Amino acid sequence: MPKNFKTTPGSVTAPQGFLASGVFCDIKRLGTGKGSNKGRKRDLALIVSEVPATVAGMFTTNQVCAAPVKVCAERVKKGVAQAIVVNSGNANACTGEQGLRDARAMTALVAKQFSLREEHVLVGSTGRIGVAMPMLNVKAGILEASALLGHGPEHAAEAAEAIMTSDTRAKQIAVEIKLGGRTARVGGICKGAGMIQPGMSATGQRPPPLPLHATMLCFVTTDAAIKPAPLRTALQEATALSFNRITVDGDMSTNDTVLVLANGLAGNTPIASTSGRDFAALQEALNYVLLELAKMIVRDGEGVSRFVTVRVNGARSPQHADIAARAVANSALVKTSWCGGDPNWGRIIDALGYSAAEVVESKVDIAYSPPGSHKLLYSLKRGRPVSTSFAALCKIAALPEFDLHINLNLGKGSAVIYAADLTEDYVDFNKGDVNDPSSLGG
Amino acid sequence: MPKNFKTTPGSVTAPQGFLASGVFCDIKRLGTGKGSNKGRKRDLALIVSEVPATVAGMFTTNQVCAAPVKVCAERVKKGVAQAIVVNSGNANACTGEQGLRDARAMTALVAKQFSLREEHVLVGSTGRIGVAMPMLNVKAGILEASALLGHGPEHAAEAAEAIMTSDTRAKQIAVEIKLGGRTARVGGICKGAGMIQPGMSATGQRPPPLPLHATMLCFVTTDAAIKPAPLRTALQEATALSFNRITVDGDMSTNDTVLVLANGLAGNTPIASTSGRDFAALQEALNYVLLELAKMIVRDGEGVSRFVTVRVNGARSPQHADIAARAVANSALVKTSWCGGDPNWGRIIDALGYSAAEVVESKVDIAYSPPGSHKLLYSLKRGRPVSTSFAALCKIAALPEFDLHINLNLGKGSAVIYAADLTEDYVDFNKGDVNDPSSLGG
Repeated sequence: MPKNFKTTPGSVTAPQGFLASGVFCDIKRLGTGKGSNKGRKRDLALIVSEVPATVAGMFTTNQVCAAPVKVCAERVKKGVAQAIVVNSGNANACTGEQGLRDARAMTALVAKQFSLREEHVLVGSTGRIGVAMPMLNVKAGILEASALLGHGPEHAAEAAEAIMTSDTRAKQIAVEIKLGGRTARVGGICKGAGMIQPGMSATGQRPPPLPLHATMLCFVTTDAAIKPAPLRTALQEATALSFNRITVDGDMSTNDTVLVLANGLAGNTPIASTSGRDFAALQEALNYVLLELAKMIVRDGEGVSRFVTVRVNGARSPQHADIAARAVANSALVKTSWCGGDPNWGRIIDALGYSAAEVVESKVDIAYSPPGSHKLLYSLKRGRPVSTSFAALCKIAALPEFDLHINLNLGKGSAVIYAADLTEDYVDFNKGDVNDPSSLGG
Repeated sequence: MPKNFKTTPGSVTAPQGFLASGVFCDIKRLGTGKGSNKGRKRDLALIVSEVPATVAGMFTTNQVCAAPVKVCAERVKKGVAQAIVVNSGNANACTGEQGLRDARAMTALVAKQFSLREEHVLVGSTGRIGVAMPMLNVKAGILEASALLGHGPEHAAEAAEAIMTSDTRAKQIAVEIKLGGRTARVGGICKGAGMIQPGMSATGQRPPPLPLHATMLCFVTTDAAIKPAPLRTALQEATALSFNRITVDGDMSTNDTVLVLANGLAGNTPIASTSGRDFAALQEALNYVLLELAKMIVRDGEGVSRFVTVRVNGARSPQHADIAARAVANSALVKTSWCGGDPNWGRIIDALGYSAAEVVESKVDIAYSPPGSHKLLYSLKRGRPVSTSFAALCKIAALPEFDLHINLNLGKGSAVIYAADLTEDYVDFNKGDVNDPSSLGG
């Protein structure tokens, strides 16, 4: 936790001038009858700023991307937005022209409720792929969510619940910073669980070197005043260091989206460039908020029982480090060994060896430590097993969270990937129930 | 099954002049006492030709490769060999200089038993990574295996058993062909189970475009007479179409090896080039033998309950097709849906979309069929769900084996990958038992 700010209760309604709500409108069409509680989890969220806000977004680089992603990627280019409507239960992906019409209709209805410009309303979706949006339900939900908007933390919590799919808990955070003597806040909510290895860019265009592969959605609000260009830069950096560094199952979703709204109500002198103390302070806060939210996604990933931070150092280049870390973090054999609490190095060096990163067996160091600790316990040094007490290594690998340190000793490239184990629960959950197509992710 | 040859009983001893044996020498050092049957699976195999044979080999392209791979890759260059010694239970990988000395000592002992030149003896290992070979046990095993060599199919079966690790059954096949009026045979044994996505080359050097990632070992014998150069070409093609087209878990081992010995005792005019009818006949037989063995590995993969042939057509290039097929075949979400017998297309198009292959959502066709059938049942056509009976699709996806047909409709590139589902049993098996390090693969 950086020293320059403190966490504060609440999330997207912690900054001044933001309202939120979350309602149930039965997007999965479970047809829950009167008196039935089955599946009555909220499934539609609304976030609205009292005034137009500066906006920036990051989107999946999957070539097959959902209608709401297409609509948002286009609209955020203008740099201004005022509301976000989000549903769970249906991804509105692979839904063709009808999907685009439905996504736009959602934004149009929100715009109408609050007399906003339609292009100032953004939209996010997560859930089943390839099924038309149940627009009657969605519209009813938007009307109800509009009526129930509020400033309180309970309203933000309802929005956080409404965007969940297979998440077992809502994910929220907020921090407070000082910008030129003024108090500003940054708050966010997110969801994850499966299809988690985001590789997002600001345009949805894929950067050439990224080994790519969540539905993860994240919505951040701040009352800081900042121009679109520096906000875009800040979001890109914060995403590169957080959501683009996590993996649950190596699958990248069609719907990954991060949006940030900055409405300026904190009253600071607007941040106009990426230099200066205020930009640095906001960047630091944004980095912290996104990284904490990203880690919550990994910890609450489908079936996840163990959270492993894979730290690669000494690679020929940062790209080699990233490739090496992802090869380890996505290896089925490494992930199952984590499930078993096994301080394996054989499967790790095997994965390093088949990765596209340069690896020289006789130079590889592998060590374990408790989370964030600099006290490394080596299992492999320069390619040779260390006669460290196996019991001590097992103790670390049995922790619910630990750090895996890999040094390739070839150069100065380094990378961190936040990863999870692969469990029977993951398989059981995702093999799904053919008779319940609503179980199919997206 | 091609028409030009027939299968014949037995495997590596079916061709004339080959002897084999398989013994138990406790390489895992389970210390089974007298009267105990615990773990008494054979763990050392020997294959010997009565006369020097032409040899060719294909080896893992993992940058971290085992000592026996290093020894073999060097020796097969000369084109002549006469014996192969193979052990399971210890991979002799990440064992440094001692590992190389041990691998060579194994070949030296075999050479001594039969008065062969040491460099005419090859060696293969599979099992735990990073543990020194128990050479006393290994040497005792080699002496016993040498004494027990025999021509009968029961001897070949014992060798096939001895190379197994987590395999649940031995893998063997033999076929008979005609070469210029002479009868020749091609026989093979192999093992697989986990760490299965081979990407082998003749030199261990990685070809640039291959997306790489088994311990799989395969040993083939033939009494055909053929020169080293055409045998190398034939083995490369047969491997490219078989072992390099399978994946169980996407992990590529440090030990993958395919070796073929051709001792010429069939008496055909030696095949000296890749043109001519005899080369074509031998190539066809080798292709068949390796593909059947490769499919046995997938079907008997760790925890595998379903075998899926992923057929990609219409890709921009063969490489794009290969990348697309592997993205689908290695997606945790696709593989778990196969486990559930779920004819999903959402996860499939998601995996296609995040792959490095060019994909245009509105052009993608996805269909299912029973194995080898041309009667396709579409679930997606040109990016839109087909209103095919969901029940009929479920019926196909519930088969123990089915074909998944993907047409990207962008070009003429095509590729086939033989893949498997991801099950709770895979996770349970591989999370291992920390108290039993012998469970750790390699």
